Amino acid sequence: MRMFQQVSEREQESGGAGAIVMRRLDELALLSSDAKGLTRLYLTPEHKAAALRIMEWMRQAGMTADIDAVGNVVGRYLGSVPDAPVLLIGSHIDTVRDAGRYDGNLGVVVGIQAVSELSRSGARLPFGIEVIAFGDEEGVRFTATLSGSRAVAGTFDPAALDVEDEQGKSLHRALQDFGCDPSGIAAVARPEARVLGFVEVHIEQGPVLEAEGFPVGIVTAISGASRFKVEVGGEAGHAGTVPMRLRRDALMAAAEMVLVVEHIATGTPNLVGTVGRFEVLPGAVNVIPARSTFTLDVRSPSDATRAAALADIRQAFDAIAARREVGLSATCVYDEPAAPCAPWLMDALEAAIARLGLRAPRLPSGAGHDGLAMSALCPIGMLFVRCERGISHNPAEAIAAADADVATRVLVDFLRHLDPAAAGR
Amino acid sequence: MRMFQQVSEREQESGGAGAIVMRRLDELALLSSDAKGLTRLYLTPEHKAAALRIMEWMRQAGMTADIDAVGNVVGRYLGSVPDAPVLLIGSHIDTVRDAGRYDGNLGVVVGIQAVSELSRSGARLPFGIEVIAFGDEEGVRFTATLSGSRAVAGTFDPAALDVEDEQGKSLHRALQDFGCDPSGIAAVARPEARVLGFVEVHIEQGPVLEAEGFPVGIVTAISGASRFKVEVGGEAGHAGTVPMRLRRDALMAAAEMVLVVEHIATGTPNLVGTVGRFEVLPGAVNVIPARSTFTLDVRSPSDATRAAALADIRQAFDAIAARREVGLSATCVYDEPAAPCAPWLMDALEAAIARLGLRAPRLPSGAGHDGLAMSALCPIGMLFVRCERGISHNPAEAIAAADADVATRVLVDFLRHLDPAAAGR
Repeated sequence: MRMFQQVSEREQESGGAGAIVMRRLDELALLSSDAKGLTRLYLTPEHKAAALRIMEWMRQAGMTADIDAVGNVVGRYLGSVPDAPVLLIGSHIDTVRDAGRYDGNLGVVVGIQAVSELSRSGARLPFGIEVIAFGDEEGVRFTATLSGSRAVAGTFDPAALDVEDEQGKSLHRALQDFGCDPSGIAAVARPEARVLGFVEVHIEQGPVLEAEGFPVGIVTAISGASRFKVEVGGEAGHAGTVPMRLRRDALMAAAEMVLVVEHIATGTPNLVGTVGRFEVLPGAVNVIPARSTFTLDVRSPSDATRAAALADIRQAFDAIAARREVGLSATCVYDEPAAPCAPWLMDALEAAIARLGLRAPRLPSGAGHDGLAMSALCPIGMLFVRCERGISHNPAEAIAAADADVATRVLVDFLRHLDPAAAGR
Repeated sequence: MRMFQQVSEREQESGGAGAIVMRRLDELALLSSDAKGLTRLYLTPEHKAAALRIMEWMRQAGMTADIDAVGNVVGRYLGSVPDAPVLLIGSHIDTVRDAGRYDGNLGVVVGIQAVSELSRSGARLPFGIEVIAFGDEEGVRFTATLSGSRAVAGTFDPAALDVEDEQGKSLHRALQDFGCDPSGIAAVARPEARVLGFVEVHIEQGPVLEAEGFPVGIVTAISGASRFKVEVGGEAGHAGTVPMRLRRDALMAAAEMVLVVEHIATGTPNLVGTVGRFEVLPGAVNVIPARSTFTLDVRSPSDATRAAALADIRQAFDAIAARREVGLSATCVYDEPAAPCAPWLMDALEAAIARLGLRAPRLPSGAGHDGLAMSALCPIGMLFVRCERGISHNPAEAIAAADADVATRVLVDFLRHLDPAAAGR
């Protein structure tokens, strides 16, 4: 107990929760497979190092802590009564290659810090808390993704254990090498009846909070997404000899189509549409393009909005192809429904923010998160933290210590006031 | 003489001038560096084989024939008086890689056939005729291009002799290996005062004659051309998290720009505008494009029309870039003025066509030809021959024997009626 108190005193001296959170994120950022940047893939030695450090912090914060069968780090802070329901708090500690230090890690460190503050004040709540550091949200090493949160939600597919990384090592073997027993994964699933909900603090990874001047925001849903590969077939021809009226130019048709995507997305609230890849063939300065291929990515927190937009886009594409006499094919390569956040969790977060004298907008999450998997188990809520210029998955990822402080204070207040009975309302 | 008459009788039996022309083009098509397709680069053994065969045909047609210092095959048919002015007729016998058999070769074979018919009837005209098979129009082997016609026009740059092919052989050395003396190139230039003009028969390489139902057409000018490399710089961002209103999408800006090119070109008579290369970066399905680069190729038989269109395009590009807050740079990489055809040659071709009971449209040549170089020496005229679907530079290049026949009959009639005194008018 003596050591724990010493740590707490040091923390107090050094600028409050925000400063502690930032310092810990800096420390975690050193646990990387490459010396210059940050790359921490699932079940690697650097993942293990981060997991051990996080267990230490969890224990210092008054939790019991261990690593489960799928490599998640789980810290437990008991409730005021036996068999109290449990609120799950968490995010992930794996990263993409050459990552930023806030994506995922922020939510874990803020969760630990919030429990630390409850613990320090001796608070026991009418529900237990589990802080979870998921091991595989990014899905970089294995093609499987969200392995940690799926295991907790009870939707982990055992077939994923056979998936191999680039070196030919299976997930099953990688788990064993990490010190996990894959046969225990099924038991990682939480009983639905005991779980109040899942709350995640995460950087926005977008520019909205910065543009609107808010340190944090309340997520309304993790957007659903559809992706298509679109191919347009026209006719090649000599740039000098084919008059404009006799052309069937695949680039011009595709250019009209991508502008339709922009027009429809801009005119529809809570919808984004993006064409990220765009190629023309044969691709010579003096040849009219015969072929154009592009990707289409459409996202919305509302599945109905997304479906309606896709229908409008498809109709406009067909009309353009017919008018220009070009071929058109559009193949859906990905389709994932939205995961809405629970209104009672959004309201509880909003109330906490208001008690701190702040305001926060509600906004969708266009990127995927562990909450996507967790929504199969329980109500989810997310608190976004403002990040610099919306940059993420990049070493330039940045947040302000003051915003990390706000997020921690919001989470502590939210926890102190959360009424388990509200979950049913 | 006996042999020559035999050939002529065989020719007569086998379906007239069109059939002879087609048979000779088929024979030339066998003279190729690759067995399956047709590739005949400047100063190669297959070029030499074609040159020798053409000399034979020229001599059979009543001409003297030799190969000049730059590798052109030149057949001479004397006029009715000593020191008569000379009309040059010709095209090229080099090809692109995997070429069609009509591009270039047609004009040489039709020229020889026309002289053959004059010769057979014993006609001597008030001007001499030179049929020239230029050796380097396509510019595939050396970066220099139009070497043969530039030498005849007196604009051959001796520095081009040092240019090397992919194997490191200089043009100078390749000419020597071909049997030419490069020191004689300056003397290849024709004295301006003695040349009436240059007339070339060539496949259209475009779809206009086919679309409008004419076997031949009269070229008004070889179009001038401008080429640009355009770069648009926006801002990358996550496809899911950046709302439409906060984007600076380089693809969307570029898509608007290419549609402006199409709009202006379509609305301007005798103008074509083409974007043949188009790329976006980083080119990932879930990343808003940060950068877009494309080529712009604008051509017109009227330099004033081209200049005005480029100014309109530039103004529209600037407005789009300003409105969308993206960077824009456009670099001119090629700029060649138009080479107009001489009205008196156009009129003389039209009169010949009318005497044959036919009609022909006037149209620009969007592609470059030997006439571009020859226009520095003398008035030029071109007769286009309809080709299938406008396809060229491709083994699928095709023309009808009946159209080759029309072209030959037009050229013969044109020659029989051409008044050297008209050249001054």
